[in-house]
Amino acid sequence: MKNITVLGGGLVGATIARDLSARHRVTILDIKGHPSVDLSKDFTQHIRHADLVINALPGSLGYSALQTVIRAGKNCVDISFFEEDPFSLDALAKEYGATIAVDCGVAPGMCNMILDYEARFAPVHSYVCTVGGLPVVRTLPFQYKAPYSPSDVIEFYLRPARIKMNGKREVVPALSDIALENTCVGTLESFNTDGLRTLLTTMTDVESMRERTYRYPGTAQLINTLKDAGFFDREAIQMTTEVLRRAWKLEPGEDEFTIMKVLINDTIEWRLYDKRVGEDSSMARVTGFTCNAVAELMLSGAVGTPGIHAPEKIAAQENNFEFILEYARERDVIYTRRENTA
Amino acid sequence: MKNITVLGGGLVGATIARDLSARHRVTILDIKGHPSVDLSKDFTQHIRHADLVINALPGSLGYSALQTVIRAGKNCVDISFFEEDPFSLDALAKEYGATIAVDCGVAPGMCNMILDYEARFAPVHSYVCTVGGLPVVRTLPFQYKAPYSPSDVIEFYLRPARIKMNGKREVVPALSDIALENTCVGTLESFNTDGLRTLLTTMTDVESMRERTYRYPGTAQLINTLKDAGFFDREAIQMTTEVLRRAWKLEPGEDEFTIMKVLINDTIEWRLYDKRVGEDSSMARVTGFTCNAVAELMLSGAVGTPGIHAPEKIAAQENNFEFILEYARERDVIYTRRENTA
Repeated sequence: MKNITVLGGGLVGATIARDLSARHRVTILDIKGHPSVDLSKDFTQHIRHADLVINALPGSLGYSALQTVIRAGKNCVDISFFEEDPFSLDALAKEYGATIAVDCGVAPGMCNMILDYEARFAPVHSYVCTVGGLPVVRTLPFQYKAPYSPSDVIEFYLRPARIKMNGKREVVPALSDIALENTCVGTLESFNTDGLRTLLTTMTDVESMRERTYRYPGTAQLINTLKDAGFFDREAIQMTTEVLRRAWKLEPGEDEFTIMKVLINDTIEWRLYDKRVGEDSSMARVTGFTCNAVAELMLSGAVGTPGIHAPEKIAAQENNFEFILEYARERDVIYTRRENTA
Repeated sequence: MKNITVLGGGLVGATIARDLSARHRVTILDIKGHPSVDLSKDFTQHIRHADLVINALPGSLGYSALQTVIRAGKNCVDISFFEEDPFSLDALAKEYGATIAVDCGVAPGMCNMILDYEARFAPVHSYVCTVGGLPVVRTLPFQYKAPYSPSDVIEFYLRPARIKMNGKREVVPALSDIALENTCVGTLESFNTDGLRTLLTTMTDVESMRERTYRYPGTAQLINTLKDAGFFDREAIQMTTEVLRRAWKLEPGEDEFTIMKVLINDTIEWRLYDKRVGEDSSMARVTGFTCNAVAELMLSGAVGTPGIHAPEKIAAQENNFEFILEYARERDVIYTRRENTA
């Protein structure tokens, strides 16, 4: 039994804490429970007893919070998905002897590990991960509820997508290349988003890589309309975020699901379809169980030496990937693999 | 030659002043030219030499400004199209000896006069006025540029429409009952808006009356989407107005047109189609020339005694309607009448 501090008690952080507390002493550090703690400033004293820290803050707070954790010499699993390059903190983590696992959610996270796993057996030339978290009930105009920080969703809709095409890195607009696809939940649309992150640095042998996001059809057009109208311009974005926060509010217990497809070399398909279970939203389950499996690996020393560790590198060691898959499976998060031959 | 003060030097006020200055000494009172003049407060001393005042302010400022004009004992043609009931100022106007013509633009304005004119010859049971001012070049997402105060356009999109159906007054949502129609400028959509105004009080014999607005197809859905998303909620509307002000900015000299159809008893059609001429936008022309014709009538004593006068009552006197039609025709604003018999 270890002391684990979870930074951020939002939709995902709460599930992470619940799952870990079956085996560990877990403390949630959140502005709601601790109005005196400013997680954008120095909170070192609040994590001094932690054997491990989990960073489940929104992306905008994540990078600076992770720096504080590193300077406290604490190991950390980070699922804040901040925009900054995590490897920029590698030297700092080494200096302070902190072992840091970043991006250990579902996507990024599991999809990175799947790519590493497949690359062990055959050269990978093409990788496309398409993923989304959606409400079951579709309400116009957005047909969307945010299963994590709405500001991160907005950031995701605005940031140009870095992709790789035939060996060349390219930058394409967010929400571009809209395509319809029939899935197990009916027709969804998918479009480019900026989700490759560490893979752009670590998997240099893969010639073509893209991340795409699933939404109900019409979403990209609506968001692009708001963009073209000026609602995401500098002067308006704060108010727009507030409007969307209200419009996208996932109600407590509201049914939602996560759907992911990882397509390797156009033939190998890994799929995930997961739904809410009780208090735990699907997005919290699929993100949190990866995170917690990596936390267990870290506590047992299986992640590695001090420094920044991407999920695809963590999965590459020993039986880590199998352990993470099994940890998820025990909680009914099932990843399936299919190879199309023909 | 008389002294005329125009309150508001916006797109419409400027054209009004230009047109009148051929025959009168015209002063424009506007926040831009007179930063020390607050037209939402007391500006009595600035109109003390005026023989006539024209109120071309945005609707939000119009009612209070008109009260100031009345209290100064000045006659006024009001085209601010404020939301409040103009007849609520009738007693005040009589008290101060001020003759006030309200709503003397194109719609309201000319359409009211047309209805009065037709009612002289045969009982009118049905009246539908459909009108719009649109840019020639359609740019997504709005395909719209505001030819007058954008805040008035927004107000118009939000205010429920008071209509009359089979003798009963009803209130329907703004932008409801969307229909497509092939016009001389291609297919437009039209929808209910709250534009009957004084007609609801003055033309009680007409059993069915509606005002509708022309826009390029898709407009109502887009505005309703923004509405449903929360962008017009109390907390957001100020910022939204600023975003739309920028998105809807009619560039200097940008081509636009005004289109109107007044359908009486389902058989008589009055039509207007007008385009920009040089510095004068079409909306400024069709609104301003009605206004200025009424101004001339008022200066010659043909509008009536002190009190509030609706356009349909002004048109009813002597040859006022013919004078106004001719005033517009001399400036190439042509209203045509057609009777469909079959």
